[in-house]
Amino acid sequence: MAATADGLQTRTREARRVLARLDRVAKDAALETIAVALHARRDAIIAANGDDLAAGGEAGLSRALLDRLMLDEARIAALCQAVRDVAALDDPCGEVIERFTRPNGLDITKLRFPLGRVLVVYEARPNVTVDVAALCIKSGNVAILRGSSSARATNAVLLEAVHAGLTSAGLPPHAAVDLTCSRDELARFVADPANAEVVIPRGGEALKDFLIEHSRIPVLAAAGGNCHVYVDAGCDAEMAERIVLNAKVQRPGVCNAAETILVHEALTATVLPRLLRSLADAGVEIRGCDRTAAAGGGMPVATATDDDYAREFGDLVVAVRVVDSLDDALAHIDRFSTGHSEAIVTADAARGERFAAEVDSACVYVNASTRFTDGGEFGFGAEIGNSTARLHARGPVGLRDLTTSRYVVRGTGQIRT
Amino acid sequence: MAATADGLQTRTREARRVLARLDRVAKDAALETIAVALHARRDAIIAANGDDLAAGGEAGLSRALLDRLMLDEARIAALCQAVRDVAALDDPCGEVIERFTRPNGLDITKLRFPLGRVLVVYEARPNVTVDVAALCIKSGNVAILRGSSSARATNAVLLEAVHAGLTSAGLPPHAAVDLTCSRDELARFVADPANAEVVIPRGGEALKDFLIEHSRIPVLAAAGGNCHVYVDAGCDAEMAERIVLNAKVQRPGVCNAAETILVHEALTATVLPRLLRSLADAGVEIRGCDRTAAAGGGMPVATATDDDYAREFGDLVVAVRVVDSLDDALAHIDRFSTGHSEAIVTADAARGERFAAEVDSACVYVNASTRFTDGGEFGFGAEIGNSTARLHARGPVGLRDLTTSRYVVRGTGQIRT
Repeated sequence: MAATADGLQTRTREARRVLARLDRVAKDAALETIAVALHARRDAIIAANGDDLAAGGEAGLSRALLDRLMLDEARIAALCQAVRDVAALDDPCGEVIERFTRPNGLDITKLRFPLGRVLVVYEARPNVTVDVAALCIKSGNVAILRGSSSARATNAVLLEAVHAGLTSAGLPPHAAVDLTCSRDELARFVADPANAEVVIPRGGEALKDFLIEHSRIPVLAAAGGNCHVYVDAGCDAEMAERIVLNAKVQRPGVCNAAETILVHEALTATVLPRLLRSLADAGVEIRGCDRTAAAGGGMPVATATDDDYAREFGDLVVAVRVVDSLDDALAHIDRFSTGHSEAIVTADAARGERFAAEVDSACVYVNASTRFTDGGEFGFGAEIGNSTARLHARGPVGLRDLTTSRYVVRGTGQIRT
Repeated sequence: MAATADGLQTRTREARRVLARLDRVAKDAALETIAVALHARRDAIIAANGDDLAAGGEAGLSRALLDRLMLDEARIAALCQAVRDVAALDDPCGEVIERFTRPNGLDITKLRFPLGRVLVVYEARPNVTVDVAALCIKSGNVAILRGSSSARATNAVLLEAVHAGLTSAGLPPHAAVDLTCSRDELARFVADPANAEVVIPRGGEALKDFLIEHSRIPVLAAAGGNCHVYVDAGCDAEMAERIVLNAKVQRPGVCNAAETILVHEALTATVLPRLLRSLADAGVEIRGCDRTAAAGGGMPVATATDDDYAREFGDLVVAVRVVDSLDDALAHIDRFSTGHSEAIVTADAARGERFAAEVDSACVYVNASTRFTDGGEFGFGAEIGNSTARLHARGPVGLRDLTTSRYVVRGTGQIRT
């Protein structure tokens, strides 16, 4: 259905009202029928996905993108399992956030309620279609899905299965809506705040900037992640090496990968050379300060500029700086961090707690890799996104973040004087 | 200091860092020195206020506006008390929102942290200057204050007292910043998201629309309040009359006043005529449906149009409609409400709970007046605003709503595999 389709706003508003009133049993039953419908349509999904893959191959998509696009029996089984995993999560709606009584006897309860309609704009991966629909239904929200044109045929069959599941559960098909449309249509859609309650972009910086520029619907987005690992004096060298390598190397293209390693100057002769060697052995290009270069003892270390410390390489490149103290590390992070994820490796609990208290990022780690910033790793179920905004949701976005609150005030005839 | 002052962004960022690290004792001590400094400067405040009043009188400000502008000894004493009342509130910062352990042993804590810098744009009342500064300091936020030009002299002396208090408490004066500036300068200021973390408009619709149009800083605002009172079959007639009159008449110009009264058709011969008479006696102009007019028995009842049901009169005018059922009342509210505050008057607990569960407004009342939607009435201390947004904060904005969250993740060397 097109973004500008007549009546889409009305129908999603009606579906919103129905979804908001469902109890947990009804929502979980709908998720189960969706899982069944997806399984029943696995051959049709694979056939449609084959068409998308063929078109993508002709259009010259990279092998990595084609792999993200691909669905086979195993991946469809994982999709069905993801839907069932979401059903197993607690229902956030109706949860009491706080309750108190005023001196005049008014009994005030703040409780969770669905946001309404959640627009998700995403790129190649068709599993997002199902993940987002499941998370939205579980949290009582209408899902408005604007997927990538490269996954159009796959997404259409997936959404057909979602609609079949919704219908057999007695729910309106407009609980999950396809918003396949051009960029221009998308810009017009998000310009009207009556079309959805929130927009979540899942894709590159260009997509995010596009939405922030055109949307009058609030945008929940993650800035790039210029993530830091600070290796403190007196830490466990083996732990430092393990965490630094994991944060930098395991998947360098993602936003929770580390970009800068800060090392206490007490470690320049011991831990730092070992770290540099391990990074180089893993194929990482190193850009460092003078003391880093000296510690490298002839290893190729380019001179790091402020631009390097500010950059999200998204690749096997790392910036390294030797700092004189924890204070210097905190000041460096305060200056260069994008507020995504930062870690300290330390054997000193008090210094770990100071880092945890003072670093103003969505996720702050003591003795663990920054790579854990992820809805799945936090136990929030299938991913809906990550936020570096300061309002509403910060860090991995879970079901609770897909709710708003309402105050219910119970009285016995009180009036204001 | 002008909106475009060099270095303002840097200095407020520095102050933000200092404020975020203060403990409760330090913040409460600063609020006490501010209260003392305000009391000490009461003569200077009254003199400056006299200048503003004289200028306002010459400029033809209404008596109501001049009254809102006026500060005397008693009002200054109330201001000092308000600051001390904020000091007595719990500190939201550091509060643990949730804590859980993952199967891999990671210990994850979600805790509150200040938003950062809160820009409040407000109209005539100079007490807002002090209220906002106190609430921001208590919640660890920098207050950026853009008051009305009509209160310029008063605000300057008030902020001088705030700065004196901050300085004697050893805190940076940039914890509370004056942003006196033109509309154009304000538009430029809010266009840069690096200048503040949130903007709260406190004023009319024009101010709110101006900020939503120009701001790239998130805006936390209240829509107008088209508030409803639904009078259910079988309710206590005396309670219905008391609540309807209070909601409509006590202060008709404010956003939590009722605009439409819905009455169950079982009451057309009993409660409705009594309500109409009381409203008319209180000087309220009535616009109603046919059945309302019939129940009025010759009283002047204009025919209500959909425009009347959609309007926030903000005056001694009310729209009345007879509905056939609770369902019809819910449908009317769903169609016309702005999501601010709605009330039901009922003797039937189950119907009260259904209304509470299904009305999707920031505040929903069972047997109490809509006029209670207010930070002070909710026990949140001096007011910073009210929100009808669905993201971040909804309803009266309290100290907790001036915080964001951070995840602190404590490990023992975990990496992602």
